Amino acid sequence: MSDSNTTIEQLREVVRRFVEERDWRQFHSPKNLSMSLAIEAAELMEHFQWIDIAESRRVVDDPAKLAEVRDEIADVLCYLLALANELNIDLATAIRDKMVKNAAKYPAEQSRGHYAPPAEREKD
Amino acid sequence: MSDSNTTIEQLREVVRRFVEERDWRQFHSPKNLSMSLAIEAAELMEHFQWIDIAESRRVVDDPAKLAEVRDEIADVLCYLLALANELNIDLATAIRDKMVKNAAKYPAEQSRGHYAPPAEREKD
Amino acid sequence: MSDSNTTIEQLREVVRRFVEERDWRQFHSPKNLSMSLAIEAAELMEHFQWIDIAESRRVVDDPAKLAEVRDEIADVLCYLLALANELNIDLATAIRDKMVKNAAKYPAEQSRGHYAPPAEREKD
Amino acid sequence: MSDSNTTIEQLREVVRRFVEERDWRQFHSPKNLSMSLAIEAAELMEHFQWIDIAESRRVVDDPAKLAEVRDEIADVLCYLLALANELNIDLATAIRDKMVKNAAKYPAEQSRGHYAPPAEREKD
Repeated sequence: MSDSNTTIEQLREVVRRFVEERDWRQFHSPKNLSMSLAIEAAELMEHFQWIDIAESRRVVDDPAKLAEVRDEIADVLCYLLALANELNIDLATAIRDKMVKNAAKYPAEQSRGHYAPPAEREKD
Repeated sequence: MSDSNTTIEQLREVVRRFVEERDWRQFHSPKNLSMSLAIEAAELMEHFQWIDIAESRRVVDDPAKLAEVRDEIADVLCYLLALANELNIDLATAIRDKMVKNAAKYPAEQSRGHYAPPAEREKD
Repeated sequence: MSDSNTTIEQLREVVRRFVEERDWRQFHSPKNLSMSLAIEAAELMEHFQWIDIAESRRVVDDPAKLAEVRDEIADVLCYLLALANELNIDLATAIRDKMVKNAAKYPAEQSRGHYAPPAEREKD
Repeated sequence: MSDSNTTIEQLREVVRRFVEERDWRQFHSPKNLSMSLAIEAAELMEHFQWIDIAESRRVVDDPAKLAEVRDEIADVLCYLLALANELNIDLATAIRDKMVKNAAKYPAEQSRGHYAPPAEREKD
């Protein structure tokens, strides 16, 4: 099992089964799950709170730290998959559709090396 | 392209290419990406801020609202994939490993219908 | 010492002294403090994650729970004051100025019982 | 009106009146307000998302940027005051009590220049 041979649907099924075995769908309203997602995202952020940008890049070389970060990333993804399950949202097509919008907002040529879209940079 | 026939790696590659075409890896430190993830999670939460739990479940039947929520979910997932790319974290194994821990913390039988783990409920 | 006889400046001074005694201004960049604020806000939210709206109102009658929530609110406020200290922002005038904008966006008469501003409600 | 001559209670009263004139207490459950607080904290964070730590310190010298940040800080504070109003929490004593705990966790001498408490640093 790795990202190369696992479909999104297979991961969704892992989460779906875990939730159903515990009868947790009663708690999994979209409102609650959106809170859970934000809470787990904050726990992930906590690992980078006091370090600077360069140091945060070196986390990839720190196995103990990386293992903690990896667990938090898994938590965020679990809640994201649980929310997609509740709302019947296909994530692959959601990403593809959003990427079309993003590509229009951030054309590759004019966006090279700029994080603000061309439209906003003109204002400055 | 759908969740049933798309691997995690294929989605990661979509994000990787988008980032590289714009020379954005310079902004994509784990510190910054963890902030982005939390920001997008908050934008998702905004759709459920003032409605109650029952109403949040009915979003699945409101195509206009659901389309907005779907876009926010895609944003969260994009940043999660970008972060996994920067940190070389395999998400399928990260989820599997976390689920083993979760299953130990929340045994199915004792957790049915409870969102707090058995260990914490005993304290009350 | 209570909210009736404590000025904002006095609270700011409490935080300022705590930070300076520990030589922590080196960590207190606005970027880091904005992360801290979001992290503490998420910890506060955790207390309301799985309960419904009515139950969250009853926290006021649950002394043990209320004490935990009170500690989290204090954490959020500490970081907010630390950030105001770093940026030399007067909070009393910031609130007053923002309230003028809010009153224009949400005129009292048209906003009674609606959480969306009149301009947005017209679109629906 | 400035932080030196404004009490916390006076700011609370500004928010209380705004909420009551709009009949908004019906939306102001602690659950909803904790979400609002996290959402506004994320909007504040957005201003520091892509800049580095040094650049975030220079926001204090950029009047246009500072005005935007000031508005976001006011939003966070408004929701914090609204939540304190709903839960009848005195903020001055909440801060004082939390500071006593913080001072025990982070003794000034052993904490100079360290953001992690002594107890955690020993583990490393």
